[in-house]
Amino acid sequence: MENGHITLVGGGPGAWDLLTVRGLRALQAADVILADHLGPADQLAEFVDLAGKEVIDVAKLPYARQVTQERINELLVAYAREGKHVVRLKGGDPYVFGRGFEELQACAAAGLECSVVPGVTSAVSVPASAGIPVTQRGVTHGFSVVTGHLSPQHPGSLVDWDALARLGGTIVVIMGVRNVRAITQALIDGGLRPETPAAVIQDGETTAQRVYFADAATLADVMEREGITSPAVYVIGEVAGLAHAG
Amino acid sequence: MENGHITLVGGGPGAWDLLTVRGLRALQAADVILADHLGPADQLAEFVDLAGKEVIDVAKLPYARQVTQERINELLVAYAREGKHVVRLKGGDPYVFGRGFEELQACAAAGLECSVVPGVTSAVSVPASAGIPVTQRGVTHGFSVVTGHLSPQHPGSLVDWDALARLGGTIVVIMGVRNVRAITQALIDGGLRPETPAAVIQDGETTAQRVYFADAATLADVMEREGITSPAVYVIGEVAGLAHAG
Repeated sequence: MENGHITLVGGGPGAWDLLTVRGLRALQAADVILADHLGPADQLAEFVDLAGKEVIDVAKLPYARQVTQERINELLVAYAREGKHVVRLKGGDPYVFGRGFEELQACAAAGLECSVVPGVTSAVSVPASAGIPVTQRGVTHGFSVVTGHLSPQHPGSLVDWDALARLGGTIVVIMGVRNVRAITQALIDGGLRPETPAAVIQDGETTAQRVYFADAATLADVMEREGITSPAVYVIGEVAGLAHAG
Repeated sequence: MENGHITLVGGGPGAWDLLTVRGLRALQAADVILADHLGPADQLAEFVDLAGKEVIDVAKLPYARQVTQERINELLVAYAREGKHVVRLKGGDPYVFGRGFEELQACAAAGLECSVVPGVTSAVSVPASAGIPVTQRGVTHGFSVVTGHLSPQHPGSLVDWDALARLGGTIVVIMGVRNVRAITQALIDGGLRPETPAAVIQDGETTAQRVYFADAATLADVMEREGITSPAVYVIGEVAGLAHAG
């Protein structure tokens, strides 16, 4: 039997119509879809005819988090070896903290064909949904996207928060709800003005979206007061002060 | 007569099927489309029935560059005031160096309704098309996207290249072909290892795509030797060394 192939699809930030046309077609042509709870997975039945397709909710696999990635890799490989067209639907873009490259490597190691369909990244589109442009002429010539899943004090942290504070462009933090107080403090300690505008967006691009504005010094307080939970993105930089009501 | 409305659509990096479903629908519903030569504009007739639609190639407007943005803003407003649904099709994402926010502000100032459809940004998807993930667990916890249209020595430059070198994550430079030598030198002067892997991708996500690998010290030489021209994206960081042949 011939091997099937694997397509990693970036599902975008949440609303299913922010999928790319290429991503949608891959889903429509799939035999097996492995999805988690990020991006448009919960709406799958609304935009793909699932008859004859197997849909696996990887968030419900009976394993701990670390094992789950290995298990996902195993499943991608196993289904493709059965000749199936396997789509791995991910939130946002597969390569923006999505561990997509690890999945690609696992498929390549197994000698299987794997293609990647980029997606609309939450790092840019979620701020946009709150009226915040990550770049604006005359205001910033760049933006940085970092994961806040490790505290700045954590020995495994690969982010130089001092350098990030000094860089001065737009800072977008993903997966940083729990560590927001340590992160904003590290940035301010690194020289970021405490009055730098900031905003947090929870459940971006979904009907549950909530947005709050603050500054670097008050962001942690505001997020605590409002009970912000994951998934949330926060933006620190002058662009957060440009937010447009429209 | 009632006013129409304006939709800013991120067209993605080039291939039309990397448009979002929402963006495609906006184009299909448009009365007037203002497009430039970035993203999927050249393929418009392949995926949108243009009968009854007016398509304006803003790159051909008879004005100098600076004036053109004002002229584009005027046209968006003028057509919407005629009751038209106006779509402004942009390359990549409207808010990643796309001047989309300026267009939104112009529409808002005129009291017109304007919505923004995010797109797949070239900053992430073009490296991906060359097998380069902007993030990878254990390698980098972040990436920075900067415009290289101004040399580090230019008084108008808002990028702190020293801080960027120190930050150490993935660096993605857009619109930086002309200044690549000054930019890589500034990064190395700022402490970036000259051996840091680098790659350049010209005409990403099109059939003309060209990719070359180098390191921070040799990138300018390689780009000069290969005659790289805009549009091109270059990536400097350990992830450029992970590039996968698949």
